[in-house]
Amino acid sequence: MSNAYTQLIHALKILPNVGNKTAQRMAHTLLHTNRDGAAQLSQAIENALKQIHNCQLCHDFCEGELCAICANPQRDASRLMIVQMPADIAAMEAARCHDGLYFVLMGQVNPSQEMDLRSIALEQLIARLSGSSVEEIIIATAHTAEGDATAYILAELFKNQHYKISRLARGMPLGSELEYVDAGTLAQAVYDRNLLK
Amino acid sequence: MSNAYTQLIHALKILPNVGNKTAQRMAHTLLHTNRDGAAQLSQAIENALKQIHNCQLCHDFCEGELCAICANPQRDASRLMIVQMPADIAAMEAARCHDGLYFVLMGQVNPSQEMDLRSIALEQLIARLSGSSVEEIIIATAHTAEGDATAYILAELFKNQHYKISRLARGMPLGSELEYVDAGTLAQAVYDRNLLK
Repeated sequence: MSNAYTQLIHALKILPNVGNKTAQRMAHTLLHTNRDGAAQLSQAIENALKQIHNCQLCHDFCEGELCAICANPQRDASRLMIVQMPADIAAMEAARCHDGLYFVLMGQVNPSQEMDLRSIALEQLIARLSGSSVEEIIIATAHTAEGDATAYILAELFKNQHYKISRLARGMPLGSELEYVDAGTLAQAVYDRNLLK
Repeated sequence: MSNAYTQLIHALKILPNVGNKTAQRMAHTLLHTNRDGAAQLSQAIENALKQIHNCQLCHDFCEGELCAICANPQRDASRLMIVQMPADIAAMEAARCHDGLYFVLMGQVNPSQEMDLRSIALEQLIARLSGSSVEEIIIATAHTAEGDATAYILAELFKNQHYKISRLARGMPLGSELEYVDAGTLAQAVYDRNLLK
């Protein structure tokens, strides 16, 4: 096998969940099926590395100093929603239910790997909050073991501070029938049931 | 979302089995977790596109005109093994059971997609064989629906020619116990059973 090929396989394996087999399939696409797309990909990575940095406020990826949301004076700067990943912001924006600002942790704490706090942007979060006008913090981490652990770390961090802290509700997804909802979710939905009268 | 980010996501989706979700996870790795690796990947793709072409004989990826195997005068030029992908050559070489040459189809014929012959390097194969000293052709396509269809196409192509044609045997994998082998393989192993006396 050629040297440039071996290096390509090696370089592809930095991608998440890409092992030898997948890297070989990818190399086949890049070198055989779609060489134009491959050239565009190489260029897109180079451009993105040059142009994309972290927003100075919310830590999301952006091209300038501030992302569009943080730069928008219409957003309510007193409420900060903390999410794990950039894609979470897009999902939340699509739901049109939060007009405050965001902070992106760019990761999660893994309870099965000694709760390594370096995997989330804690320092940046503390710097973001110091001297800010934030009054309410909404912890919007996932309802998974990692999301729960991350939420726990954040709740501990803010314990003796003046912020109002909340976390996303757990319960039945909208439009779901009982028989298709898993037992854990059902139990949570019963436990957190809302009083109607 | 920034423009360079959108372009990166778009460019990543040319990779096999990469949709929006996976592309976002990959972009996170490239832009956040491993920026050095990302720069190396961009460079590796660029280098590979520049340096890697198809071997003029076997159609495998290589950097010069001929790959190491085709350029090796020790190999038996009268026997040609036809495989689907470059990785198949590596697997076959590791088994040390073929000292002839190879030809890589760089794909397979898909019976569920109208048997499009453009997905395999048929023209290059015909050019490779014309005036060559090949006497025996071993069809080493996979024992899948696609591999079977590809083998069928090849067998049809060579039907009225002088080559001795064979295909890899089907049967029990070595070291496997009967209870763990699927029914189709077992049936084939019985059907193709070898007479011992």
